[in-house]
Amino acid sequence: MTSVPSWANVDERRNLPPALAVSTVILGIRPGVEGGPDKLCLPLVRRIRQPHAGMWALPGGPVDARESLGQAAGRTLAGTTGLRPNYLEQLYTFGDIDRSPTHRLVTIAYFALLHVDQVGATVQDPNVAWFDIDDPAIAQLAFDHRKIVDYALWRLRNKTEYGQIAHRLLGERFTLAALRGVYEAILGRRLDPANFRRTLNSTASIEATDEYLAGGKHRPPRLYRYVGHGPDPLEVDPLHG
Amino acid sequence: MTSVPSWANVDERRNLPPALAVSTVILGIRPGVEGGPDKLCLPLVRRIRQPHAGMWALPGGPVDARESLGQAAGRTLAGTTGLRPNYLEQLYTFGDIDRSPTHRLVTIAYFALLHVDQVGATVQDPNVAWFDIDDPAIAQLAFDHRKIVDYALWRLRNKTEYGQIAHRLLGERFTLAALRGVYEAILGRRLDPANFRRTLNSTASIEATDEYLAGGKHRPPRLYRYVGHGPDPLEVDPLHG
Repeated sequence: MTSVPSWANVDERRNLPPALAVSTVILGIRPGVEGGPDKLCLPLVRRIRQPHAGMWALPGGPVDARESLGQAAGRTLAGTTGLRPNYLEQLYTFGDIDRSPTHRLVTIAYFALLHVDQVGATVQDPNVAWFDIDDPAIAQLAFDHRKIVDYALWRLRNKTEYGQIAHRLLGERFTLAALRGVYEAILGRRLDPANFRRTLNSTASIEATDEYLAGGKHRPPRLYRYVGHGPDPLEVDPLHG
Repeated sequence: MTSVPSWANVDERRNLPPALAVSTVILGIRPGVEGGPDKLCLPLVRRIRQPHAGMWALPGGPVDARESLGQAAGRTLAGTTGLRPNYLEQLYTFGDIDRSPTHRLVTIAYFALLHVDQVGATVQDPNVAWFDIDDPAIAQLAFDHRKIVDYALWRLRNKTEYGQIAHRLLGERFTLAALRGVYEAILGRRLDPANFRRTLNSTASIEATDEYLAGGKHRPPRLYRYVGHGPDPLEVDPLHG
């Protein structure tokens, strides 16, 4: 285990080998209320120990000696929130010297997108809750977790195919309107539907299916699907190693 | 420091907290000889200590308690090879349980592209050398360093803008022929010049300048430049923290 010896004073702790932890950013979409925009949201855990006791933080914990990094992320995520996403992507390793006030702590951040029907479902615990991405609490997370969340959002906006994002946030089949809602939530602004459709046509990663959204409408909207590249080869399955 | 206590036997070592190290993949372009293709190449360091003494490995070493991860990568790279690239990008953190035969070792891999005029320049040391990417030695690196190199190549092929790659491998201004050589080296196959030019025109990240390559040719080729997005916000400057 990576606990800090109780005999160590502050200076001695800083010279110990870095301790290793994992933290996970899980982003989902919460559909807009009464015509309002869709919102990105994420689960947080309130810390019950020092340092930063009482503050909200990303789900996570120390890496055990006999588990892989991805297994550590999956285990600590499930243990704190009850969430078990079907993949985890390694985001970045944060190791600034002073990111923990008590000892040198290096944190490997993981990242996942959760289907819309799993958003909000966590264990019943007053110390676990979902927050909208623009909630003021996000600005005051423990450690440098705000920086980790900001980096996850940057990655989402810049390094991922939107078709793949839609696939992961919305599921196997989705309407263009739902896809536009996802784009709007990620970019934080409304998009013109006609321009959006034109832009989409120039990307190769989604295609129309022969299916339509079930429901009572006169002209039900067509369903689309993701046809892009496979995942990152180092993406991990946290449940199966 | 992250050294392993000498009293620990194999089983005890595996239950110690993970030790933390950094490794760096530096890729450069070696221009093709006598019309042959350009080749990607990288510097390696021969290990003089166990485990894997005598095997070639990526430059790297342990993370000191009082340096950031990027500083550790820059320091160990300069200390072993003499190379000082002007940026380092964090690639991925490798932490499989058995990746070192002696103890649990988590390695944060960094990545950089080196300008063509810096390729081959390293300290004079029989234990430091540049290898072409298709050299058989690459298949037999120490630890899981082959996996780290393969992931760097995958990242290069899939996740980076080619304009940015050209900028980093070739410099501020480059010809389309030099750019095609880079593409060919990365993809590992020859490309049709006319098709290549058409494909380039549909990407936004390079533009023609008013300058031409200096030299004795009747029609000197035009120079292009990179006009894409800025770097990853977490890219580090290993020399200045």
